Amino acid sequence: DFFKMEAGSALKSFVEYTSEHHFPLENIPFGTFKNPETNETHCCTRIGDFVIDLAVLHDLGHFSGDHLKGENVFNHEFLNTFMAAGRPAWTEARVTIQNLFAEGSSFASDEDGKSKTMFAFDKVEMTLPVNIKDYTDFYSSKHHAYNVGCMIRGPDNALQPNYTYLPVGYHGRSSSIVLSGTDVRRPKGQVSADKKVPTWSDCKRLDFELEMGAYVGVGNELGKPIKISNSSDHIFGLSLLNDWSARDIQVWEYVPLGPFNAKNFASTVSPWIITLEALEPFKIAHQEQDPEPLPYLKEENPSTYNIDLHVGIQSESMDAPHEVCKSNFKHLYWNVNQQLTHHAVTGCNMSTGDFLGSGTISGPEKSERGC
Amino acid sequence: DFFKMEAGSALKSFVEYTSEHHFPLENIPFGTFKNPETNETHCCTRIGDFVIDLAVLHDLGHFSGDHLKGENVFNHEFLNTFMAAGRPAWTEARVTIQNLFAEGSSFASDEDGKSKTMFAFDKVEMTLPVNIKDYTDFYSSKHHAYNVGCMIRGPDNALQPNYTYLPVGYHGRSSSIVLSGTDVRRPKGQVSADKKVPTWSDCKRLDFELEMGAYVGVGNELGKPIKISNSSDHIFGLSLLNDWSARDIQVWEYVPLGPFNAKNFASTVSPWIITLEALEPFKIAHQEQDPEPLPYLKEENPSTYNIDLHVGIQSESMDAPHEVCKSNFKHLYWNVNQQLTHHAVTGCNMSTGDFLGSGTISGPEKSERGC
Repeated sequence: DFFKMEAGSALKSFVEYTSEHHFPLENIPFGTFKNPETNETHCCTRIGDFVIDLAVLHDLGHFSGDHLKGENVFNHEFLNTFMAAGRPAWTEARVTIQNLFAEGSSFASDEDGKSKTMFAFDKVEMTLPVNIKDYTDFYSSKHHAYNVGCMIRGPDNALQPNYTYLPVGYHGRSSSIVLSGTDVRRPKGQVSADKKVPTWSDCKRLDFELEMGAYVGVGNELGKPIKISNSSDHIFGLSLLNDWSARDIQVWEYVPLGPFNAKNFASTVSPWIITLEALEPFKIAHQEQDPEPLPYLKEENPSTYNIDLHVGIQSESMDAPHEVCKSNFKHLYWNVNQQLTHHAVTGCNMSTGDFLGSGTISGPEKSERGC
Repeated sequence: DFFKMEAGSALKSFVEYTSEHHFPLENIPFGTFKNPETNETHCCTRIGDFVIDLAVLHDLGHFSGDHLKGENVFNHEFLNTFMAAGRPAWTEARVTIQNLFAEGSSFASDEDGKSKTMFAFDKVEMTLPVNIKDYTDFYSSKHHAYNVGCMIRGPDNALQPNYTYLPVGYHGRSSSIVLSGTDVRRPKGQVSADKKVPTWSDCKRLDFELEMGAYVGVGNELGKPIKISNSSDHIFGLSLLNDWSARDIQVWEYVPLGPFNAKNFASTVSPWIITLEALEPFKIAHQEQDPEPLPYLKEENPSTYNIDLHVGIQSESMDAPHEVCKSNFKHLYWNVNQQLTHHAVTGCNMSTGDFLGSGTISGPEKSERGC
């Protein structure tokens, strides 16, 4: 059966890596990189410390399944073409790669094929994986919304009454989303100490936000909402996101329409997108939602993912990062399916390459504040 | 001189139109359409009641100026390639077309050339002119902001203190921007009569907004702001915009981060983009700004355009539209140059195809409320 690994096999690759490695054969993330031999940008995956050129693998005839054997969907600068192909193609890619790189596969002894497709991770340049269309930033951590609300309105009115009925979100800026590691330039703009008269100044309160984001793989037509029951089939995968924020610019500009310049100078995403298939082992029941969501947001078995998240800061003079917070993806009050379904409920058309930020992921403890 | 019409000539075309026509030889708007003979989508202009295929004109060798004689920048589904070519190319296109369609030009008697490029307006299908990247909606009519502020916070606090210091704006949704005339589906979503508990309902308070928008032709690099002195060289032209708004969805969802689903189901733009060159005769001094803008927003001779705007509503059973408001572009407190410069002040990278909505353009009178 094409879609099954050998029964009983713990996944084992001919690529060597430790049991703690983030990129075992069970993962199969997707990204894009510059092939150091051809200098072309192609779609890729990673196993252990090797980046694997999927466009070249395709040229060599290794994607022979129904959904991928035609057009080389990996021979692009961005993942969008592959993403638009839908879940059956994503699953086929995953299983094809797992079979190919399994211990004892015929590819394991194909020295020529391996040398053309496998590159040491520390020798290649990763690139922005997706041509990001619209970017939406949600506000789905109740702990975060409560903390911010307390600062602005005090604890009694910290959460707006809509918070537990809908995933609050706002449209963000997609042009300035850059790859993790890109230098972020300290923004200048209007700041106002007295909130009456501004000056033009370097930002002095540049902040990070610990977020994750979901990429839309398959969109919907304008006017045709997405049902919650198949919302997850539209999601290609998840990524880390740092929503850089200029707090001093934000407090002056944000009334009454929300943050604008305080966020549009840069947001950072990781090079790898982790598919929902890869996250299956980390699936857990979603936290209880009270009040019960309206029917269009209600799932039969609501779930989310148990993903530990850490933020560290390291200056040039430091030997190791200093951990400033620990959190977990499971703390989000609204899950990704609910975010997507709510986004499209009015008929808004989601597109391949749309990116949905979670909002800062704070946990219940002070040490878990994600910004 | 390539860039000058014959001295002393009032522009006169061999195409016939009345003196009241919106598309005389002085205008030369840009758009895209389906060529009814080849069924290909190309860039076009309009003179009188004829739509003119610029891609075919280019193939026939009529764009011989320095900036346009190479690649056929009009042979595309969207104007973006032409827009990215910059103001010298835009001016060259304008003058080339004006010379070609002037009375007595050699093209006037080229029956074959005319039949391949000129199509009766009422026989063609116009298409969305720009592949819109990021969409930003400003809030630049002080009268509108004051009216809205009065409803929410009362007259004493109607305008937030930042209003007269910076062009307030927020990121909008670009995927659902459609061409004028496209059916807009009434959205469904969460509404709440008591602002405590919502129901899922058809929108019952669907509203229009009278806006105009500016398309960015030439962008800037991330981290490199745009100076106010050459801001207008980045602007390709202006268009009408109707920012459809679901008011009952908006009042429930918008706190604390602004409108989201209330606006993301559709926004409508006109098929034609009017260049700043065409608007030169309508240029007027910008209204006084008090307080004086910060230096980065201050122009030597601030100007705007005197453009009369009307909104009419017509149902199927009505013979003619009923006019519901009259306004004028000049009522905007912040002009387009200031909007663009402020947008990029933090280093935000603007891209070819970005669209900047003005916000509802209300005038000082009640009859001039643009929504």
